[in-house]
Amino acid sequence: MGYTVEQIAKALGTTALGNGALEVTGVAEPVDAGRHDLALAMKPEYADTLGEGSARAAVVWDGADWQALGLEAAIVAPRPRYVMSGLTTMFDPGQGWDSGIHPSAVVDASAELGEGVTVGPLAVVCAGARIGAGSVIGPQAFVGADAVLGEKAFLREGVRIGARVVIGDRFIAQPGAVVGGDGFSYVTPEKSNVEQARQTLGSQDGTNAQAWTRINSLGAVRIGDDVELGSNCTIDRGTIRDTRIGNGTKIDNLVMIGHNVEIGNDSLLCGCVGIAGSTRIGNNVVLGGQTGVSDNIFIGDNVITGGGTIVLSNIPEGRVMLGYPAMKMETTMEVFKGFRRLKRLFADVAELKKTVSKPGQSD
Amino acid sequence: MGYTVEQIAKALGTTALGNGALEVTGVAEPVDAGRHDLALAMKPEYADTLGEGSARAAVVWDGADWQALGLEAAIVAPRPRYVMSGLTTMFDPGQGWDSGIHPSAVVDASAELGEGVTVGPLAVVCAGARIGAGSVIGPQAFVGADAVLGEKAFLREGVRIGARVVIGDRFIAQPGAVVGGDGFSYVTPEKSNVEQARQTLGSQDGTNAQAWTRINSLGAVRIGDDVELGSNCTIDRGTIRDTRIGNGTKIDNLVMIGHNVEIGNDSLLCGCVGIAGSTRIGNNVVLGGQTGVSDNIFIGDNVITGGGTIVLSNIPEGRVMLGYPAMKMETTMEVFKGFRRLKRLFADVAELKKTVSKPGQSD
Amino acid sequence: MGYTVEQIAKALGTTALGNGALEVTGVAEPVDAGRHDLALAMKPEYADTLGEGSARAAVVWDGADWQALGLEAAIVAPRPRYVMSGLTTMFDPGQGWDSGIHPSAVVDASAELGEGVTVGPLAVVCAGARIGAGSVIGPQAFVGADAVLGEKAFLREGVRIGARVVIGDRFIAQPGAVVGGDGFSYVTPEKSNVEQARQTLGSQDGTNAQAWTRINSLGAVRIGDDVELGSNCTIDRGTIRDTRIGNGTKIDNLVMIGHNVEIGNDSLLCGCVGIAGSTRIGNNVVLGGQTGVSDNIFIGDNVITGGGTIVLSNIPEGRVMLGYPAMKMETTMEVFKGFRRLKRLFADVAELKKTVSKPGQSD
Repeated sequence: MGYTVEQIAKALGTTALGNGALEVTGVAEPVDAGRHDLALAMKPEYADTLGEGSARAAVVWDGADWQALGLEAAIVAPRPRYVMSGLTTMFDPGQGWDSGIHPSAVVDASAELGEGVTVGPLAVVCAGARIGAGSVIGPQAFVGADAVLGEKAFLREGVRIGARVVIGDRFIAQPGAVVGGDGFSYVTPEKSNVEQARQTLGSQDGTNAQAWTRINSLGAVRIGDDVELGSNCTIDRGTIRDTRIGNGTKIDNLVMIGHNVEIGNDSLLCGCVGIAGSTRIGNNVVLGGQTGVSDNIFIGDNVITGGGTIVLSNIPEGRVMLGYPAMKMETTMEVFKGFRRLKRLFADVAELKKTVSKPGQSD
Repeated sequence: MGYTVEQIAKALGTTALGNGALEVTGVAEPVDAGRHDLALAMKPEYADTLGEGSARAAVVWDGADWQALGLEAAIVAPRPRYVMSGLTTMFDPGQGWDSGIHPSAVVDASAELGEGVTVGPLAVVCAGARIGAGSVIGPQAFVGADAVLGEKAFLREGVRIGARVVIGDRFIAQPGAVVGGDGFSYVTPEKSNVEQARQTLGSQDGTNAQAWTRINSLGAVRIGDDVELGSNCTIDRGTIRDTRIGNGTKIDNLVMIGHNVEIGNDSLLCGCVGIAGSTRIGNNVVLGGQTGVSDNIFIGDNVITGGGTIVLSNIPEGRVMLGYPAMKMETTMEVFKGFRRLKRLFADVAELKKTVSKPGQSD
Repeated sequence: MGYTVEQIAKALGTTALGNGALEVTGVAEPVDAGRHDLALAMKPEYADTLGEGSARAAVVWDGADWQALGLEAAIVAPRPRYVMSGLTTMFDPGQGWDSGIHPSAVVDASAELGEGVTVGPLAVVCAGARIGAGSVIGPQAFVGADAVLGEKAFLREGVRIGARVVIGDRFIAQPGAVVGGDGFSYVTPEKSNVEQARQTLGSQDGTNAQAWTRINSLGAVRIGDDVELGSNCTIDRGTIRDTRIGNGTKIDNLVMIGHNVEIGNDSLLCGCVGIAGSTRIGNNVVLGGQTGVSDNIFIGDNVITGGGTIVLSNIPEGRVMLGYPAMKMETTMEVFKGFRRLKRLFADVAELKKTVSKPGQSD
């Protein structure tokens, strides 16, 4: 898996400087780089650490004097993070799995596998499942009855795709991701304490003890193209209609998406985010880690939330939000500043009250 | 899987209006409904969308003029959510799995399987396990040594039930749920920094670096009847006694229940809730999504928490709580209102201080 | 699995009182203890409950009059929690699994298994994996290509260790733990809304809708000795270098550790903690349940956080933190107190404003 510096530059849409014929077999941080690694020195602060490693070629920042850095060859990265995408794709060693249908896999005779599909050891593909060409169903993964996967799906070990789930092309799922568990939906014969508390914003008679009856999930999950799911995340099926996730949306580890939720295109949901049932989320939304979103609300396009934000009501498009409850980031930053001065504020007011109530004694 | 409108009405304990002999094969939202679907139009706001779909029969709201809506047959839903329970049970297509013991399953000779038990492909049932009649152990699921499952358990793909766990009848577990991992319990030879910080409410000498020694979990997990667990949730075993969950309690995806925890009957724990070790939770409690509960505390019957609530101390029965820290919902709502006016408050107090310190110059 | 009281006392490094030859076969809480159990009565408040059970031997608190408690034999626990460690290790019944390589396991011919390694039913060990002597790869567990496990690893059912992950000795992983999922790392061709919002602390033009391109994860995960992972937790691989976890660190259920994160030695991460990418955490750190930590920050040695803490910036060593945002615990406790008095404060200031603006009418 070696490339010349020139091949790499070309793949990244730029040009090689110096000895373009130099071959590298891996990428490394400057200090760790060996003689056959391409060092990633995309910011000036890496200048010194390059000398600590042994790299002869590097990706350098725009404007770097690569020769003065002791390099034989260099590639200039105008947008370093973007260059990372191309580079890491070229050098990805992958999972090292064999291709083909492993004899220990249990594949139902009625399942339809496209050309070049791999099914790993001890994986299960149920009746009526359809898997697109070039897909990899990893070791111990599961594809339920009548589920549909598009082309070039890549399911890591232990991924679970439930019955009737429909997924587009180039789907990636990290280990243990679950799509198509049943929704969490129960009802009591009479109005429950929770319904009371919601209607009264906080009061309930508290005596209304009833058992919960299950609402089954008849819907499935429908996922677009180019979606990725993180390790051990869970996406529930819808009650009547499908839970829906648009194209290009990326979902991180341990994210929970409830029943009937709809998420648009090109949104990012970071680690440990939870979205309660029937909530709608727009396009190009970014939810920071541990963001929680209530059920039955709406988050507009291009909304961004910071880490730990708790969203209890609708957010119009374009807002940047933070805090519990979610407020505009600048408002929450003011509140956070206020927290640190709150003790002083109470003292000031106590002092003012004393002063004002005894006006003759002030000053 | 078709039913006449009359059969459905009877099953729901009500009567059919119009052509009760009309057969439907599915349920759908009004706009998506085809000619053979029963549309779910349980609120007046669905009146218009009925016309967009092709439904000839619908479940309608109490008081609806079903004939004017163009329907041939109708069922009136006095409590719509409750009707959903019966309807979705009737029309649930299930997982499409075969019954019986799959030849690829690994079932120990000493395990006792009741009548009609299904064990799916690549599932494992360990020595001494006992599984009640009519239970389904799904594909790639695991039942540990000497574990006991009651009748009609339904374990989805990849569920893990640890050794010696005891579970009642009609248990449902979604994909990847784990019952019976070991508790998170460690101790240092001398008093640890954490113990110091807890005793002093925040100070520690910070120099007490020690390695952690493990406290093993000898207890198991004991779960009542009619309990459901969500995808990838985890319930730890107890240290000496069992972790306990009562009858009828429902636990959502990615919920974490620590060692020695006791939860009563008919409680609901929504997505991403975390309960730390040895905490006790009463009956009919509802914990909103991402609620966190400290260790060794007590939450009384009928308590409700809103999303993201962080519970750091006991909650008496019947309270409706919200916020970090958990306070009565009305108190937290006031605090949230205060946040938005906090900057103004600081400005007001600054102004007051100026005014009061120069009394002659006020207004 | 029986021991005499004397054997137990010796193993705990103390001495037996009374009839040291008395044999016990289990440990139990005083009220549950049978005649052959060793009761755990390590605090004076257990004195009464001992009489409710049938224990003849107990571990008692320092200073207890064990004979007056009706016991035949006793062991004094100077530090009760620490005694629990030794006792629970002696009496742990384990998982009840067979040893050896189960015929249903899929073990690549090129994998190297040390002496006495067990591979459970339906487990997968990939090409080039190396597993140290005495290790147990549990049922349905997975060890990826070229992964390395030290001696005496114990992988519970369904654990997933990804390709090229390297782990030290005495590793324990609870069911469903995932090590080596890919990092959550994407980039847009031009500057994204999130990058804008971060640079401006909250504003973005919101029109910059772009699709996300993936940055692949070339690094692995490197874990030291004596590390334990909880059920369904996830640890992502690094982008270029490895994600790293030091010796003796313990990680609880549903914890999420992002790409490139570095964690030191002997730290504890409690349930549902989330650590975003590239953050560094020191030694002997304790993060309480549901603590969230932003990306690219630093947490010093001996830091402790309380439950639900959201860490948005660096924390120097030795600090005890709580709240959202994380502040010193005493500051947050003051803020929490302030919350309860906030409504009163607003009223006081309103009153003051009235009084001050009409000075002649005060009192």
